[in-house]
Amino acid sequence: MHDTRDRLVQASAGLLQRQGLTGTGIKQILTEARAPYSSLYHHFPGGKDELAEVAIRASGAQYQALVEAVWDEAPDVTSAVAAVFEGAAQTLESTDFAVACPIATVALEVASTNERLRRATAEVFDTWIASATRRLEAQGVSPRDARIVALTLISLLEGAFVLSQALRSTEPVLAAGATAGLAVEKVLDSRAPRSTRANTLDP
Amino acid sequence: MHDTRDRLVQASAGLLQRQGLTGTGIKQILTEARAPYSSLYHHFPGGKDELAEVAIRASGAQYQALVEAVWDEAPDVTSAVAAVFEGAAQTLESTDFAVACPIATVALEVASTNERLRRATAEVFDTWIASATRRLEAQGVSPRDARIVALTLISLLEGAFVLSQALRSTEPVLAAGATAGLAVEKVLDSRAPRSTRANTLDP
Repeated sequence: MHDTRDRLVQASAGLLQRQGLTGTGIKQILTEARAPYSSLYHHFPGGKDELAEVAIRASGAQYQALVEAVWDEAPDVTSAVAAVFEGAAQTLESTDFAVACPIATVALEVASTNERLRRATAEVFDTWIASATRRLEAQGVSPRDARIVALTLISLLEGAFVLSQALRSTEPVLAAGATAGLAVEKVLDSRAPRSTRANTLDP
Repeated sequence: MHDTRDRLVQASAGLLQRQGLTGTGIKQILTEARAPYSSLYHHFPGGKDELAEVAIRASGAQYQALVEAVWDEAPDVTSAVAAVFEGAAQTLESTDFAVACPIATVALEVASTNERLRRATAEVFDTWIASATRRLEAQGVSPRDARIVALTLISLLEGAFVLSQALRSTEPVLAAGATAGLAVEKVLDSRAPRSTRANTLDP
């Protein structure tokens, strides 16, 4: 039975990414998940909204884990940021521009129309922002600067995804990656000297 | 009869911005436009898709005119970019985060699902990119750099809109504006010396 629940969540996540919330019907989710109608309300008594909420959180966490893995494998922050944008460009190309941000379409759809799901997308973005902020702070960047750059990196990626998917070109993601690198270099250069930093970061 | 056509286009543009394409039904468009059912197919024989295409182009052109007016009023490029992002933040706040990019929701929805409307959103983004590129080239920035920075500015704005609408906060748009200013300053600093520039720009 747990397999059925997982299949419903994964099928929903994929459909929400490609078609958005209103474009995705219950029937299509059940067909793609090879699940009977009764299983939907068994696992998700709140129906489509509850399933969508779980799917948003699940795909948000999956995407975060993927980006963090790419980031943490890189030898330094500048390479990490470059690798994230290059990886995004490769994924766009290899999926015929179908796979970009897993939750952006839904986030825009629900922003003014569905408060429950808006909160779910906001919580996903908040954890992404916190993850990038922590990684920059670990390099000695001040909390305030780290947060501004984290917001910038995610904005660049999200916005470039919109352009790249519409234009069917990786050019926007690669251009955004160049600016992301510039923003990171600038904030690393503006760090306090190492002696001062050690006071605030080390135990 | 022409008034009815305009009302259909404007009603569609507003609904597409707030609810996206699949979330917007013909009935709601007709109600909001105070138009009879027969008028839809009279003015738009292709039905909802044809109306949506016209609405996407119309709201894309309106938004471009708005941003160009803000840009061209500013005393210099750096102030222009700051004014665009500050204006976007003010609009978000004054509309309870309902009004951001007029076509982003639709662009993401149709990217993998509706080729006709994907092309319409791509053409709007292309004209925005060309407009920003021209304005940077007029400052002596090389065509290649101008295009990269134009793509960056639009990516920053689009992505920050996604975050700001989801989080119901202007913080992402203001952070993106700071990075946009940085990118513009950097590209202005890297221009060729004025004597060289004059050769290529002046008649």
